[in-house]
Amino acid sequence: MEQVRYGIIGLGNQGASYALNIFEKGKATDATVTAVCDVNPAKIEAFKSKTQNKELVYFSDYKEMLDSGLCDAVLVEVPHYQHPEMVMECLKRDIHVICDKPAGVYTKQVREMNEAAKSSKALFAMMFNQRTNCVYRKMKEIIAEGGIGELQRVNWIITDWYRTQYYYDSGSWRATWAGEGGGVLINQCPHQIDLVQWIVGEMPVSVNGFCQYGKWHDIEVEDEVTAFFKYKNGATGVFITTTGEAPGTNRLEISGTGGKLLSDGKDGLVWYKNATDAGEHSKTSTDGFKKPAREVINVETDGENPQHAGIINNFTGAILGKEELFVDGKEGINGVELMNAIELSGWNNAEEIALPIDEDRYLRELNAHRAVSRIKDTADVAAADTAGTY
Amino acid sequence: MEQVRYGIIGLGNQGASYALNIFEKGKATDATVTAVCDVNPAKIEAFKSKTQNKELVYFSDYKEMLDSGLCDAVLVEVPHYQHPEMVMECLKRDIHVICDKPAGVYTKQVREMNEAAKSSKALFAMMFNQRTNCVYRKMKEIIAEGGIGELQRVNWIITDWYRTQYYYDSGSWRATWAGEGGGVLINQCPHQIDLVQWIVGEMPVSVNGFCQYGKWHDIEVEDEVTAFFKYKNGATGVFITTTGEAPGTNRLEISGTGGKLLSDGKDGLVWYKNATDAGEHSKTSTDGFKKPAREVINVETDGENPQHAGIINNFTGAILGKEELFVDGKEGINGVELMNAIELSGWNNAEEIALPIDEDRYLRELNAHRAVSRIKDTADVAAADTAGTY
Repeated sequence: MEQVRYGIIGLGNQGASYALNIFEKGKATDATVTAVCDVNPAKIEAFKSKTQNKELVYFSDYKEMLDSGLCDAVLVEVPHYQHPEMVMECLKRDIHVICDKPAGVYTKQVREMNEAAKSSKALFAMMFNQRTNCVYRKMKEIIAEGGIGELQRVNWIITDWYRTQYYYDSGSWRATWAGEGGGVLINQCPHQIDLVQWIVGEMPVSVNGFCQYGKWHDIEVEDEVTAFFKYKNGATGVFITTTGEAPGTNRLEISGTGGKLLSDGKDGLVWYKNATDAGEHSKTSTDGFKKPAREVINVETDGENPQHAGIINNFTGAILGKEELFVDGKEGINGVELMNAIELSGWNNAEEIALPIDEDRYLRELNAHRAVSRIKDTADVAAADTAGTY
Repeated sequence: MEQVRYGIIGLGNQGASYALNIFEKGKATDATVTAVCDVNPAKIEAFKSKTQNKELVYFSDYKEMLDSGLCDAVLVEVPHYQHPEMVMECLKRDIHVICDKPAGVYTKQVREMNEAAKSSKALFAMMFNQRTNCVYRKMKEIIAEGGIGELQRVNWIITDWYRTQYYYDSGSWRATWAGEGGGVLINQCPHQIDLVQWIVGEMPVSVNGFCQYGKWHDIEVEDEVTAFFKYKNGATGVFITTTGEAPGTNRLEISGTGGKLLSDGKDGLVWYKNATDAGEHSKTSTDGFKKPAREVINVETDGENPQHAGIINNFTGAILGKEELFVDGKEGINGVELMNAIELSGWNNAEEIALPIDEDRYLRELNAHRAVSRIKDTADVAAADTAGTY
């Protein structure tokens, strides 16, 4: 194989954008799109008017596309609930697959998908494009090398996801338990929720979630969350997000006995590096107040942040045996687990939820919310049909 | 009266510093120190070797000092538990009194003190010197004038209170339930706990406190706290503090529908000022993502930050009828209430505690902790004798 032939399932904003802005603009190395699929004929017509690719084959049924022999690899770009099912259909055909975020809505379905991945010859990746950001890669690297010592505190204020009511009214499935399976956690935050465990290198052992539902918008799901994390060594964390604030904040701070890393959500990364471990210093100092000496380092990174194209090119390279797979798709379950735990706590008066969560309880409570969901009836509903995904 | 004659009860670090660094250095206008008091003769001797004031009268019994006719006003600089009792002794003699922070250890005793203040002719202030900081005054002013619209979120990360084990071992009363009545909340944070309600202009209606006891030090009280606040209008807040981190962070962010204020704990104050209310904009916009236009203003303040001298000079001025009292001592109960609520929640698995708290429950649970407190027996114990304060 010299060129990997991709198919795209779902021609919504994301799927169409990959085809038009990455593949057609020549940003995908050793790869081409051969087939696309959408259940909604209007989406296909809209896409046809934009694409320059005259060789494309169109499908309305994704299984027909998978069986056509036209695709070595597939991008899954459909509503959240359908991710695991479609990924598994690819995997059982040994078709390589990149799943867009999140891996699924609840861990029970994601675990099944991961089992399928183990017994498939195909590669499976998650579209965790934010992991390609040089700042986050560098933070992970510094922490993994012991650069902040023992973990003490994680704090991510990610409140710059402002959305208007118009946004929520633009799709019947948006911000509904039945359509999306959650609000700001599952739609806006999957990257940060994944990153917070990927960068730190471990999951919390328990979570309390203070979730507020339809607080800033006329929606049924959460549009503001404050979550409290506990880690195995006793370290704590806070994760705050909302779609109701403007201008909002994006600030990630991770502290340890060896220092602190601070990202302002832009290019900057500051490393406060203690000359001696603050925990040891506390035990041995004969001064009551003096902190360890420290350097303040404006960290240089490699400056690269290839985002979606980076994920696709790495995936192509891995299929062709030229490089290591950057994002193992099976890691997608971590973010889903963390989101599920916060949501479950939010439904239960901020109860402390131990991880791993009780998957059956989560699905039971989710289904109770889906059963009374006010998914709206608009023209967009066909594209987001979630029938059969319960 | 042309000069206000002050007495100081307690010659620990704080009391001695006021005498030596404010009064003797001429920073106290229209005021002089005439008498000082400490139960510990060693503290009096140490003080005598430092003071240049040869007119001072020394007392070991503070009531004798109050009855001596030498003091128009008093500074109360003793362990926390004794604050209300001593303030009340001043007030019932119509002697003006400034109480150092905190107002007390539990609201029940502070409420009694406030009742005494209402029926006294004397003035009563709290040493909330941080309220004199131009940045915090400006934040309060902007919020009171509607500059951030409707309150949405409060976030104070105040983790730069690093203390070593040596600090905790330096006084028998330090970091004990019986000696101080708490840890980082009551010793290091009373200013921020007061400021957070003073700047915002209101108290939360409920609190969840995640308190960790002796986490970074060999102490019995909390040295790390993450608290979650809910406000009347549904706004939320997070307050994080610890004595276990270095270098730590001091960052206060207050968001509303009209914008956001950000203080980095130094001189800077940034005001993100929305051109239109983000809540209204969300309801009426026909764009899904676009935030309201905004200005980013580096706010100018009056630059003044007179701290302890500012509080003392204002108090003197108020006694002499020359100015309005800046800090009504009765407001000290707010910070104590907030600390008590966080502590009570922390003792009870982060239970949501509604404000105003159940004072009897708090005192009952506090006393249970005091009963098993390991207050240490060192040379310093006499100065911190809390006998009779239970």
